Amino acid sequence: MRIVSYSVDDGEDYGFMASNNEFVPRYFVEEVLGHGIPKDVKELLPDRELLELIEAAVNGVGLEKVSLDSVHLRPPIPDPRKIICLGLNYMDHVEELGAETPDDLVIFLKPPTALTGPFDPIVKPRMVEQLDYEGEMAIVIADRCKDAEPSEAIYHVFGYMVFNDVSARDIQFKDGQWTRGKSFDTFAPTGPWITSREEVGDPHSLRIITRVNREIRQNSNTGRMIFKVSSIVSGLSQVMTLEPGDIIATGTPSGVGYSWRPEPRLLKPGDVVEVWIEGLGAIRNQVVEEPRP
Amino acid sequence: MRIVSYSVDDGEDYGFMASNNEFVPRYFVEEVLGHGIPKDVKELLPDRELLELIEAAVNGVGLEKVSLDSVHLRPPIPDPRKIICLGLNYMDHVEELGAETPDDLVIFLKPPTALTGPFDPIVKPRMVEQLDYEGEMAIVIADRCKDAEPSEAIYHVFGYMVFNDVSARDIQFKDGQWTRGKSFDTFAPTGPWITSREEVGDPHSLRIITRVNREIRQNSNTGRMIFKVSSIVSGLSQVMTLEPGDIIATGTPSGVGYSWRPEPRLLKPGDVVEVWIEGLGAIRNQVVEEPRP
Repeated sequence: MRIVSYSVDDGEDYGFMASNNEFVPRYFVEEVLGHGIPKDVKELLPDRELLELIEAAVNGVGLEKVSLDSVHLRPPIPDPRKIICLGLNYMDHVEELGAETPDDLVIFLKPPTALTGPFDPIVKPRMVEQLDYEGEMAIVIADRCKDAEPSEAIYHVFGYMVFNDVSARDIQFKDGQWTRGKSFDTFAPTGPWITSREEVGDPHSLRIITRVNREIRQNSNTGRMIFKVSSIVSGLSQVMTLEPGDIIATGTPSGVGYSWRPEPRLLKPGDVVEVWIEGLGAIRNQVVEEPRP
Repeated sequence: MRIVSYSVDDGEDYGFMASNNEFVPRYFVEEVLGHGIPKDVKELLPDRELLELIEAAVNGVGLEKVSLDSVHLRPPIPDPRKIICLGLNYMDHVEELGAETPDDLVIFLKPPTALTGPFDPIVKPRMVEQLDYEGEMAIVIADRCKDAEPSEAIYHVFGYMVFNDVSARDIQFKDGQWTRGKSFDTFAPTGPWITSREEVGDPHSLRIITRVNREIRQNSNTGRMIFKVSSIVSGLSQVMTLEPGDIIATGTPSGVGYSWRPEPRLLKPGDVVEVWIEGLGAIRNQVVEEPRP
Protein backbone atom coordinates (compact mmCIF):
# COMPACT_ATOMS: atom_id res chain seq x y z
CA MET A 1 0.00 0.00 0.00
CA ARG A 2 1.10 3.56 -0.72
CA ILE A 3 -0.55 6.51 1.04
CA VAL A 4 -0.48 10.00 -0.45
CA SER A 5 -1.65 13.30 1.09
CA TYR A 6 -2.91 16.08 -1.12
CA SER A 7 -4.78 19.34 -1.31
CA VAL A 8 -7.20 20.69 -3.87
CA ASP A 9 -9.03 24.00 -4.00
CA ASP A 10 -11.71 22.94 -1.59
CA GLY A 11 -9.66 21.13 1.00
CA GLU A 12 -7.16 18.51 2.02
CA ASP A 13 -7.34 14.75 2.28
CA TYR A 14 -5.31 11.63 1.64
CA GLY A 15 -5.68 8.63 -0.59
CA PHE A 16 -4.19 5.38 -1.83
CA MET A 17 -1.97 5.01 -4.88
CA ALA A 18 -3.51 2.81 -7.58
CA SER A 19 -0.63 3.17 -10.05
CA ASN A 20 2.40 5.46 -10.32
CA ASN A 21 0.31 8.44 -11.36
CA GLU A 22 -3.18 7.75 -10.04
CA PHE A 23 -4.73 7.38 -6.62
CA VAL A 24 -8.08 6.68 -5.03
CA PRO A 25 -9.13 9.39 -2.53
CA ARG A 26 -9.97 8.28 1.01
CA TYR A 27 -13.60 9.33 0.73
CA PHE A 28 -14.13 7.26 -2.47
CA VAL A 29 -12.91 4.20 -0.57
CA GLU A 30 -15.11 5.12 2.37
CA GLU A 31 -18.17 5.14 0.11
CA VAL A 32 -17.32 1.75 -1.39
CA LEU A 33 -16.60 0.19 1.99
CA GLY A 34 -19.60 1.76 3.68
CA HIS A 35 -17.24 2.14 6.63
CA GLY A 36 -15.65 5.29 8.11
CA ILE A 37 -11.94 5.91 7.46
CA PRO A 38 -10.30 8.45 9.86
CA LYS A 39 -9.69 11.88 8.33
CA ASP A 40 -6.36 12.07 10.19
CA VAL A 41 -3.99 9.61 8.54
CA LYS A 42 -2.21 9.09 11.90
CA GLU A 43 -5.34 7.37 13.18
CA LEU A 44 -5.47 4.98 10.23
CA LEU A 45 -1.89 3.68 10.56
CA PRO A 46 -2.42 1.42 13.62
CA ASP A 47 -5.67 -0.08 12.29
CA ARG A 48 -4.50 -3.23 10.48
CA GLU A 49 -7.97 -4.59 9.95
CA LEU A 50 -9.20 -1.43 8.25
CA LEU A 51 -5.98 -1.20 6.21
CA GLU A 52 -6.65 -4.68 4.82
CA LEU A 53 -10.20 -3.75 3.86
CA ILE A 54 -8.90 -0.62 2.13
CA GLU A 55 -6.20 -2.51 0.29
CA ALA A 56 -8.72 -5.01 -1.06
CA ALA A 57 -11.05 -2.20 -2.14
CA VAL A 58 -8.30 -0.22 -3.89
CA ASN A 59 -7.06 -3.33 -5.71
CA GLY A 60 -10.61 -4.23 -6.73
CA VAL A 61 -12.07 -3.19 -10.05
CA GLY A 62 -14.21 -0.21 -10.88
CA LEU A 63 -12.99 2.33 -8.31
CA GLU A 64 -12.71 5.80 -9.74
CA LYS A 65 -9.14 7.10 -9.80
CA VAL A 66 -7.71 10.62 -9.67
CA SER A 67 -4.60 11.74 -11.52
CA LEU A 68 -1.72 12.95 -9.33
CA ASP A 69 -1.32 15.83 -11.77
CA SER A 70 -4.68 17.26 -10.75
CA VAL A 71 -3.77 17.74 -7.06
CA HIS A 72 -1.06 19.35 -4.96
CA LEU A 73 0.93 16.79 -2.98
CA ARG A 74 1.43 17.49 0.71
CA PRO A 75 3.80 15.87 3.20
CA PRO A 76 2.32 12.34 3.59
CA ILE A 77 2.01 12.89 7.36
CA PRO A 78 1.13 16.60 7.42
CA ASP A 79 0.95 16.88 11.19
CA PRO A 80 3.20 14.40 13.01
CA ARG A 81 3.78 14.64 16.74
CA LYS A 82 7.52 14.01 16.33
CA ILE A 83 10.15 14.24 13.63
CA ILE A 84 13.23 12.49 15.01
CA CYS A 85 16.43 12.71 12.98
CA LEU A 86 19.60 10.65 13.32
CA GLY A 87 23.09 12.09 13.01
CA LEU A 88 25.99 10.06 11.64
CA ASN A 89 24.43 6.78 10.44
CA TYR A 90 26.13 5.82 7.15
CA MET A 91 29.58 4.26 7.00
CA ASP A 92 30.43 6.23 3.86
CA HIS A 93 29.51 9.50 5.59
CA VAL A 94 31.55 8.54 8.69
CA GLU A 95 34.49 7.76 6.38
CA GLU A 96 34.25 11.02 4.43
CA LEU A 97 34.30 12.96 7.70
CA GLY A 98 37.09 10.85 9.18
CA ALA A 99 34.87 10.52 12.25
CA GLU A 100 34.65 7.61 14.64
CA THR A 101 31.87 5.07 14.20
CA PRO A 102 29.25 6.05 16.77
CA ASP A 103 28.31 3.45 19.37
CA ASP A 104 24.83 4.85 20.00
CA LEU A 105 22.09 6.93 18.33
CA VAL A 106 22.76 10.66 18.14
CA ILE A 107 19.50 12.47 17.52
CA PHE A 108 17.84 15.85 17.15
CA LEU A 109 14.23 16.80 16.48
CA LYS A 110 12.73 18.95 13.72
CA PRO A 111 9.52 20.90 14.37
CA PRO A 112 6.41 19.90 12.34
CA THR A 113 6.45 23.41 10.84
CA ALA A 114 9.61 22.45 8.91
CA LEU A 115 7.67 19.98 6.76
CA THR A 116 6.95 20.77 3.15
CA GLY A 117 5.50 18.79 0.26
CA PRO A 118 7.48 16.55 -2.09
CA PHE A 119 7.50 19.10 -4.92
CA ASP A 120 7.28 22.35 -2.93
CA PRO A 121 10.02 24.98 -2.75
CA ILE A 122 12.77 25.01 -0.13
CA VAL A 123 12.86 28.61 1.07
CA LYS A 124 16.42 29.85 1.71
CA PRO A 125 16.11 32.24 4.67
CA ARG A 126 17.84 35.60 4.30
CA MET A 127 19.83 34.92 7.48
CA VAL A 128 21.24 31.62 6.12
CA GLU A 129 24.45 31.62 4.07
CA GLN A 130 25.28 27.92 3.81
CA LEU A 131 22.26 25.93 2.69
CA ASP A 132 22.75 22.19 2.26
CA TYR A 133 20.84 18.98 1.45
CA GLU A 134 20.84 15.58 3.16
CA GLY A 135 18.96 12.84 1.32
CA GLU A 136 17.53 10.31 3.77
CA MET A 137 15.12 7.42 4.15
CA ALA A 138 12.42 8.12 6.75
CA ILE A 139 10.54 5.57 8.82
CA VAL A 140 6.84 6.14 9.62
CA ILE A 141 5.67 4.59 12.89
CA ALA A 142 2.44 2.54 12.85
CA ASP A 143 1.48 2.33 16.50
CA ARG A 144 2.29 3.44 20.00
CA CYS A 145 5.30 1.68 21.45
CA LYS A 146 7.78 1.98 24.33
CA ASP A 147 10.76 -0.26 25.09
CA ALA A 148 10.29 -2.32 21.92
CA GLU A 149 12.73 -5.21 21.68
CA PRO A 150 14.90 -5.17 18.52
CA SER A 151 13.21 -8.41 17.41
CA GLU A 152 9.70 -6.91 17.49
CA ALA A 153 10.54 -3.30 16.62
CA ILE A 154 9.99 -3.76 12.90
CA TYR A 155 6.31 -4.53 13.50
CA HIS A 156 5.84 -0.98 14.78
CA VAL A 157 6.96 0.40 11.41
CA PHE A 158 4.14 1.29 9.05
CA GLY A 159 6.37 2.15 6.13
CA TYR A 160 8.99 4.39 4.58
CA MET A 161 9.30 7.58 2.59
CA VAL A 162 11.89 9.94 1.15
CA PHE A 163 13.14 12.84 3.30
CA ASN A 164 15.53 15.73 2.81
CA ASP A 165 17.12 16.97 6.06
CA VAL A 166 17.80 20.48 4.75
CA SER A 167 20.43 22.19 6.91
CA ALA A 168 21.89 25.67 7.41
CA ARG A 169 25.52 24.72 8.00
CA ASP A 170 26.60 28.18 9.17
CA ILE A 171 24.01 28.17 11.96
CA GLN A 172 24.38 24.46 12.73
CA PHE A 173 28.14 24.77 13.31
CA LYS A 174 28.03 28.17 15.01
CA ASP A 175 25.47 26.88 17.54
CA GLY A 176 27.12 23.51 18.12
CA GLN A 177 23.63 22.21 18.79
CA TRP A 178 22.20 21.25 15.39
CA THR A 179 18.54 22.01 16.04
CA ARG A 180 18.20 25.68 15.08
CA GLY A 181 20.02 25.33 11.75
CA LYS A 182 17.72 22.47 10.78
CA SER A 183 14.40 23.88 12.02
CA PHE A 184 13.55 26.58 9.46
CA ASP A 185 10.19 26.35 7.71
CA THR A 186 10.46 24.15 4.56
CA PHE A 187 13.65 22.43 5.81
CA ALA A 188 11.94 19.01 5.78
CA PRO A 189 10.62 18.16 2.30
CA THR A 190 9.14 14.67 2.37
CA GLY A 191 7.12 12.24 0.27
CA PRO A 192 6.08 11.61 -2.38
CA TRP A 193 4.03 9.01 -0.45
CA ILE A 194 4.44 6.43 2.31
CA THR A 195 5.18 2.94 1.01
CA SER A 196 4.14 0.24 3.46
CA ARG A 197 6.70 -2.05 5.06
CA GLU A 198 5.16 -5.09 3.33
CA GLU A 199 5.53 -3.49 -0.07
CA VAL A 200 9.15 -2.39 0.56
CA GLY A 201 10.44 -5.73 1.80
CA ASP A 202 14.05 -5.35 2.98
CA PRO A 203 14.59 -1.65 3.85
CA HIS A 204 18.36 -2.18 3.74
CA SER A 205 18.82 -3.00 0.08
CA LEU A 206 17.63 0.25 -1.50
CA ARG A 207 19.72 2.61 -3.62
CA ILE A 208 19.52 6.22 -2.43
CA ILE A 209 20.55 9.06 -4.72
CA THR A 210 20.55 12.83 -4.31
CA ARG A 211 20.93 15.04 -7.36
CA VAL A 212 21.33 18.80 -7.63
CA ASN A 213 20.40 20.20 -11.03
CA ARG A 214 20.45 16.60 -12.32
CA GLU A 215 24.02 15.99 -11.18
CA ILE A 216 24.51 13.11 -8.74
CA ARG A 217 25.82 14.29 -5.35
CA GLN A 218 24.96 11.40 -3.03
CA ASN A 219 24.89 7.80 -4.24
CA SER A 220 24.66 5.08 -1.65
CA ASN A 221 22.54 2.20 -0.43
CA THR A 222 20.41 1.94 2.68
CA GLY A 223 22.38 -1.26 3.42
CA ARG A 224 25.27 0.99 4.50
CA MET A 225 23.38 2.29 7.53
CA ILE A 226 25.22 1.72 10.81
CA PHE A 227 22.07 1.41 12.91
CA LYS A 228 19.42 -0.55 11.05
CA VAL A 229 15.67 0.12 11.22
CA SER A 230 15.08 -2.41 14.01
CA SER A 231 17.85 -1.00 16.21
CA ILE A 232 16.74 2.56 15.54
CA VAL A 233 13.11 1.96 16.48
CA SER A 234 14.06 -0.16 19.46
CA GLY A 235 16.71 2.32 20.65
CA LEU A 236 14.47 5.36 20.34
CA SER A 237 11.63 3.55 22.09
CA GLN A 238 13.93 3.07 25.12
CA VAL A 239 13.96 6.86 25.37
CA MET A 240 10.51 8.02 24.33
CA THR A 241 7.11 6.60 23.55
CA LEU A 242 6.76 6.37 19.77
CA GLU A 243 3.33 7.16 18.37
CA PRO A 244 1.42 6.56 15.11
CA GLY A 245 2.71 8.86 12.37
CA ASP A 246 5.99 9.71 14.11
CA ILE A 247 8.68 10.26 11.48
CA ILE A 248 12.25 9.03 11.96
CA ALA A 249 14.82 10.25 9.42
CA THR A 250 17.59 7.65 9.38
CA GLY A 251 20.64 9.74 8.52
CA THR A 252 22.38 10.72 5.31
CA PRO A 253 25.13 9.05 3.25
CA SER A 254 28.30 10.78 2.02
CA GLY A 255 28.27 13.60 -0.51
CA VAL A 256 26.51 16.40 1.35
CA GLY A 257 27.37 19.81 -0.09
CA TYR A 258 29.70 21.06 2.63
CA SER A 259 31.92 17.95 2.45
CA TRP A 260 32.80 18.40 -1.25
CA ARG A 261 36.45 19.18 -1.98
CA PRO A 262 38.26 21.31 -3.02
CA GLU A 263 35.21 23.54 -2.47
CA PRO A 264 31.91 22.89 -0.67
CA ARG A 265 28.97 22.77 -3.09
CA LEU A 266 26.12 24.40 -1.24
CA LEU A 267 22.63 25.22 -2.48
CA LYS A 268 21.66 28.52 -4.05
CA PRO A 269 18.34 29.92 -5.23
CA GLY A 270 17.24 28.28 -8.45
CA ASP A 271 18.89 24.92 -7.68
CA VAL A 272 16.67 21.85 -7.94
CA VAL A 273 17.36 19.09 -5.40
CA GLU A 274 16.03 15.60 -5.99
CA VAL A 275 16.19 12.70 -3.56
CA TRP A 276 15.31 9.29 -4.96
CA ILE A 277 15.13 5.99 -3.10
CA GLU A 278 14.62 2.70 -4.90
CA GLY A 279 11.00 1.59 -4.45
CA LEU A 280 10.00 4.73 -2.51
CA GLY A 281 9.89 7.29 -5.32
CA ALA A 282 11.50 10.72 -5.59
CA ILE A 283 10.99 14.20 -4.18
CA ARG A 284 12.10 17.28 -6.09
CA ASN A 285 12.34 20.71 -4.50
CA GLN A 286 13.55 23.97 -5.92
CA VAL A 287 15.45 26.44 -3.76
CA VAL A 288 13.92 29.91 -3.69
CA GLU A 289 14.93 33.15 -1.95
CA GLU A 290 12.89 34.13 1.06
CA PRO A 291 10.62 36.94 -0.11
CA ARG A 292 11.26 40.37 1.39
CA PRO A 293 8.75 41.10 4.15
CA MET B 1 -6.83 34.47 33.52
CA ARG B 2 -5.34 31.15 34.54
CA ILE B 3 -6.04 28.00 32.51
CA VAL B 4 -5.72 24.56 34.06
CA SER B 5 -5.95 21.13 32.36
CA TYR B 6 -7.19 18.14 34.30
CA SER B 7 -8.48 14.60 34.12
CA VAL B 8 -11.17 12.84 36.09
CA ASP B 9 -12.41 9.26 35.87
CA ASP B 10 -14.60 9.89 32.88
CA GLY B 11 -12.34 12.06 30.78
CA GLU B 12 -10.13 15.09 30.29
CA ASP B 13 -10.89 18.76 29.95
CA TYR B 14 -9.61 22.17 30.94
CA GLY B 15 -10.97 25.02 32.99
CA PHE B 16 -10.37 28.46 34.46
CA MET B 17 -8.99 29.14 37.92
CA ALA B 18 -11.45 31.02 40.16
CA SER B 19 -9.18 31.10 43.24
CA ASN B 20 -5.97 29.34 44.23
CA ASN B 21 -7.72 26.04 44.83
CA GLU B 22 -10.87 26.14 42.73
CA PHE B 23 -11.63 26.31 39.05
CA VAL B 24 -14.61 26.46 36.71
CA PRO B 25 -14.60 23.67 34.11
CA ARG B 26 -14.79 24.68 30.44
CA TYR B 27 -18.14 23.04 29.92
CA PHE B 28 -19.71 24.93 32.85
CA VAL B 29 -18.65 28.19 31.21
CA GLU B 30 -19.93 26.96 27.88
CA GLU B 31 -23.37 26.38 29.38
CA VAL B 32 -23.48 29.82 30.96
CA LEU B 33 -22.27 31.56 27.80
CA GLY B 34 -24.51 29.54 25.51
CA HIS B 35 -21.52 29.59 23.18
CA GLY B 36 -19.11 26.81 22.19
CA ILE B 37 -15.59 26.79 23.66
CA PRO B 38 -13.07 24.63 21.76
CA LYS B 39 -12.24 21.31 23.45
CA ASP B 40 -8.61 21.70 22.39
CA VAL B 41 -7.11 24.51 24.49
CA LYS B 42 -4.72 25.37 21.62
CA GLU B 43 -7.72 26.56 19.62
CA LEU B 44 -8.90 28.86 22.41
CA LEU B 45 -5.62 30.74 22.88
CA PRO B 46 -5.82 32.93 19.74
CA ASP B 47 -9.49 33.85 20.26
CA ARG B 48 -9.30 37.11 22.22
CA GLU B 49 -12.97 37.86 21.93
CA LEU B 50 -14.01 34.52 23.37
CA LEU B 51 -11.35 34.80 26.08
CA GLU B 52 -12.90 38.08 27.22
CA LEU B 53 -16.37 36.56 27.37
CA ILE B 54 -14.99 33.66 29.40
CA GLU B 55 -13.13 35.94 31.79
CA ALA B 56 -16.27 37.95 32.46
CA ALA B 57 -18.28 34.78 33.04
CA VAL B 58 -15.72 33.27 35.43
CA ASN B 59 -15.46 36.50 37.41
CA GLY B 60 -19.25 36.76 37.57
CA VAL B 61 -21.24 35.45 40.47
CA GLY B 62 -22.97 32.13 40.88
CA LEU B 63 -20.81 29.87 38.70
CA GLU B 64 -20.28 26.48 40.23
CA LYS B 65 -16.63 25.80 41.13
CA VAL B 66 -14.66 22.58 41.42
CA SER B 67 -11.90 21.96 43.94
CA LEU B 68 -8.44 21.29 42.49
CA ASP B 69 -8.12 18.46 45.01
CA SER B 70 -10.88 16.52 43.27
CA VAL B 71 -9.10 16.25 39.91
CA HIS B 72 -5.75 15.16 38.52
CA LEU B 73 -3.81 18.03 36.98
CA ARG B 74 -2.37 17.51 33.51
CA PRO B 75 0.19 19.54 31.58
CA PRO B 76 -1.71 22.78 30.80
CA ILE B 77 -1.08 22.25 27.07
CA PRO B 78 -1.29 18.47 26.89
CA ASP B 79 -0.56 18.20 23.18
CA PRO B 80 1.60 21.06 21.88
CA ARG B 81 3.04 20.98 18.38
CA LYS B 82 6.43 22.22 19.61
CA ILE B 83 8.38 22.40 22.84
CA ILE B 84 11.36 24.66 22.17
CA CYS B 85 14.02 24.94 24.88
CA LEU B 86 16.78 27.50 25.23
CA GLY B 87 20.29 26.66 26.34
CA LEU B 88 22.44 29.11 28.31
CA ASN B 89 20.11 32.07 29.04
CA TYR B 90 20.83 33.23 32.62
CA MET B 91 23.85 35.35 33.50
CA ASP B 92 24.28 33.49 36.80
CA HIS B 93 24.35 30.13 34.97
CA VAL B 94 26.84 31.48 32.42
CA GLU B 95 29.01 32.70 35.30
CA GLU B 96 28.88 29.42 37.22
CA LEU B 97 29.99 27.56 34.08
CA GLY B 98 32.65 30.14 33.23
CA ALA B 99 31.15 30.14 29.74
CA GLU B 100 31.01 33.03 27.29
CA THR B 101 27.82 35.05 27.05
CA PRO B 102 26.04 33.70 23.96
CA ASP B 103 25.30 36.16 21.16
CA ASP B 104 22.35 34.22 19.79
CA LEU B 105 19.68 31.70 20.85
CA VAL B 106 20.91 28.12 21.26
CA ILE B 107 17.94 25.77 21.15
CA PHE B 108 16.83 22.17 21.20
CA LEU B 109 13.37 20.61 21.05
CA LYS B 110 11.67 18.19 23.43
CA PRO B 111 9.06 15.73 22.12
CA PRO B 112 5.46 16.17 23.36
CA THR B 113 5.73 12.68 24.91
CA ALA B 114 8.17 14.11 27.48
CA LEU B 115 5.41 16.18 29.07
CA THR B 116 4.03 15.24 32.44
CA GLY B 117 1.65 16.88 34.89
CA PRO B 118 2.65 19.39 37.59
CA PHE B 119 2.45 16.81 40.39
CA ASP B 120 3.22 13.60 38.47
CA PRO B 121 6.34 11.48 38.98
CA ILE B 122 9.57 11.96 37.06
CA VAL B 123 10.53 8.46 35.97
CA LYS B 124 14.29 7.83 36.18
CA PRO B 125 15.06 5.48 33.27
CA ARG B 126 17.19 2.45 34.11
CA MET B 127 19.73 3.52 31.44
CA VAL B 128 20.22 6.97 33.03
CA GLU B 129 22.83 7.47 35.77
CA GLN B 130 22.96 11.26 36.12
CA LEU B 131 19.47 12.68 36.47
CA ASP B 132 19.22 16.45 36.94
CA TYR B 133 16.67 19.27 37.24
CA GLU B 134 16.49 22.66 35.49
CA GLY B 135 13.79 25.01 36.80
CA GLU B 136 12.56 27.32 34.04
CA MET B 137 9.86 29.77 33.08
CA ALA B 138 7.98 28.67 29.94
CA ILE B 139 6.22 30.92 27.44
CA VAL B 140 2.95 29.76 25.83
CA ILE B 141 2.30 31.16 22.35
CA ALA B 142 -1.14 32.62 21.60
CA ASP B 143 -1.27 32.74 17.84
CA ARG B 144 0.48 31.84 14.64
CA CYS B 145 3.42 34.12 13.86
CA LYS B 146 6.48 34.29 11.64
CA ASP B 147 9.15 37.01 11.55
CA ALA B 148 7.65 38.90 14.47
CA GLU B 149 9.46 42.17 15.21
CA PRO B 150 10.83 42.42 18.78
CA SER B 151 8.41 45.30 19.41
CA GLU B 152 5.32 43.25 18.54
CA ALA B 153 6.52 39.80 19.66
CA ILE B 154 5.06 40.11 23.16
CA TYR B 155 1.54 40.27 21.72
CA HIS B 156 1.97 36.71 20.44
CA VAL B 157 2.50 35.47 24.01
CA PHE B 158 -0.58 34.08 25.68
CA GLY B 159 1.04 33.55 29.05
CA TYR B 160 3.57 31.76 31.19
CA MET B 161 3.95 28.62 33.27
CA VAL B 162 6.50 26.69 35.30
CA PHE B 163 8.67 24.09 33.55
CA ASN B 164 11.34 21.62 34.62
CA ASP B 165 13.80 20.72 31.85
CA VAL B 166 14.74 17.34 33.34
CA SER B 167 18.04 16.16 31.89
CA ALA B 168 20.14 12.97 31.80
CA ARG B 169 23.61 14.53 32.03
CA ASP B 170 25.47 11.31 31.19
CA ILE B 171 23.62 10.95 27.89
CA GLN B 172 23.53 14.68 27.15
CA PHE B 173 27.33 15.01 27.44
CA LYS B 174 28.18 11.66 25.82
CA ASP B 175 26.08 12.56 22.76
CA GLY B 176 27.25 16.17 22.51
CA GLN B 177 23.83 16.89 21.04
CA TRP B 178 21.52 17.52 24.01
CA THR B 179 18.28 16.18 22.56
CA ARG B 180 18.34 12.49 23.50
CA GLY B 181 19.28 13.08 27.14
CA LYS B 182 16.37 15.50 27.49
CA SER B 183 13.71 13.56 25.56
CA PHE B 184 12.76 10.73 27.91
CA ASP B 185 9.10 10.34 28.86
CA THR B 186 8.27 12.50 31.95
CA PHE B 187 11.34 14.76 31.41
CA ALA B 188 9.12 17.85 30.98
CA PRO B 189 6.92 18.40 34.06
CA THR B 190 4.94 21.58 33.58
CA GLY B 191 2.11 23.61 35.13
CA PRO B 192 0.41 24.01 37.46
CA TRP B 193 -1.56 26.27 35.07
CA ILE B 194 -0.96 28.93 32.41
CA THR B 195 -1.14 32.48 33.77
CA SER B 196 -2.03 35.00 31.11
CA ARG B 197 0.41 37.72 30.08
CA GLU B 198 -1.97 40.43 31.34
CA GLU B 199 -2.11 38.85 34.78
CA VAL B 200 1.68 38.39 35.00
CA GLY B 201 2.65 41.91 34.02
CA ASP B 202 6.44 42.17 33.70
CA PRO B 203 7.77 38.62 33.05
CA HIS B 204 11.27 39.77 34.01
CA SER B 205 10.75 40.57 37.67
CA LEU B 206 9.80 37.14 39.00
CA ARG B 207 11.69 35.14 41.58
CA ILE B 208 12.39 31.58 40.46
CA ILE B 209 13.33 28.90 42.98
CA THR B 210 14.05 25.19 42.64
CA ARG B 211 14.08 23.02 45.74
CA VAL B 212 15.04 19.38 46.18
CA ASN B 213 13.62 17.78 49.30
CA ARG B 214 12.76 21.30 50.50
CA GLU B 215 16.37 22.52 50.19
CA ILE B 216 16.89 25.48 47.86
CA ARG B 217 19.11 24.60 44.89
CA GLN B 218 18.34 27.36 42.38
CA ASN B 219 17.38 30.87 43.45
CA SER B 220 17.31 33.57 40.83
CA ASN B 221 15.07 36.07 39.12
CA THR B 222 13.68 36.02 35.57
CA GLY B 223 15.20 39.50 35.23
CA ARG B 224 18.59 37.81 34.91
CA MET B 225 17.70 36.27 31.55
CA ILE B 226 20.12 37.20 28.78
CA PHE B 227 17.52 37.02 26.00
CA LYS B 228 14.23 38.46 27.17
CA VAL B 229 10.78 37.19 26.17
CA SER B 230 10.42 39.64 23.26
CA SER B 231 13.81 38.76 21.78
CA ILE B 232 13.18 35.05 22.25
CA VAL B 233 9.82 35.06 20.50
CA SER B 234 11.07 37.37 17.78
CA GLY B 235 14.28 35.38 17.26
CA LEU B 236 12.57 32.01 17.11
CA SER B 237 9.94 33.35 14.73
CA GLN B 238 12.74 34.27 12.30
CA VAL B 239 13.47 30.54 12.13
CA MET B 240 10.13 28.79 12.40
CA THR B 241 6.44 29.61 12.35
CA LEU B 242 5.21 29.71 15.94
CA GLU B 243 1.74 28.32 16.55
CA PRO B 244 -0.93 28.53 19.27
CA GLY B 245 0.07 26.43 22.27
CA ASP B 246 3.74 26.17 21.34
CA ILE B 247 5.82 26.03 24.52
CA ILE B 248 9.14 27.85 24.84
CA ALA B 249 11.24 27.05 27.92
CA THR B 250 13.45 30.05 28.54
CA GLY B 251 16.55 28.47 30.11
CA THR B 252 17.65 27.75 33.66
CA PRO B 253 19.52 29.82 36.25
CA SER B 254 22.59 28.63 38.22
CA GLY B 255 22.44 25.79 40.71
CA VAL B 256 21.65 22.77 38.57
CA GLY B 257 22.72 19.53 40.23
CA TYR B 258 25.77 18.72 38.15
CA SER B 259 27.36 22.14 38.77
CA TRP B 260 27.42 21.80 42.58
CA ARG B 261 30.89 21.62 44.15
CA PRO B 262 32.74 19.82 45.59
CA GLU B 263 30.32 17.12 44.43
CA PRO B 264 27.46 17.23 41.91
CA ARG B 265 24.07 16.81 43.57
CA LEU B 266 22.02 14.77 41.15
CA LEU B 267 18.52 13.37 41.58
CA LYS B 268 17.80 9.92 42.96
CA PRO B 269 14.58 7.96 43.38
CA GLY B 270 12.52 9.33 46.25
CA ASP B 271 13.71 12.93 45.78
CA VAL B 272 11.02 15.57 45.47
CA VAL B 273 11.79 18.45 43.10
CA GLU B 274 9.80 21.68 43.30
CA VAL B 275 10.03 24.60 40.93
CA TRP B 276 8.27 27.79 42.02
CA ILE B 277 7.98 31.04 40.10
CA GLU B 278 6.53 34.17 41.66
CA GLY B 279 2.98 34.66 40.38
CA LEU B 280 2.99 31.44 38.33
CA GLY B 281 2.68 28.84 41.09
CA ALA B 282 4.72 25.74 41.80
CA ILE B 283 5.13 22.25 40.38
CA ARG B 284 6.28 19.36 42.54
CA ASN B 285 7.45 16.06 41.11
CA GLN B 286 8.83 13.00 42.85
CA VAL B 287 11.54 10.94 41.22
CA VAL B 288 10.67 7.24 40.88
CA GLU B 289 12.59 4.27 39.48
CA GLU B 290 11.47 3.02 36.10
CA PRO B 291 9.51 -0.16 36.80
CA ARG B 292 11.05 -3.40 35.55
CA PRO B 293 9.39 -4.48 32.29
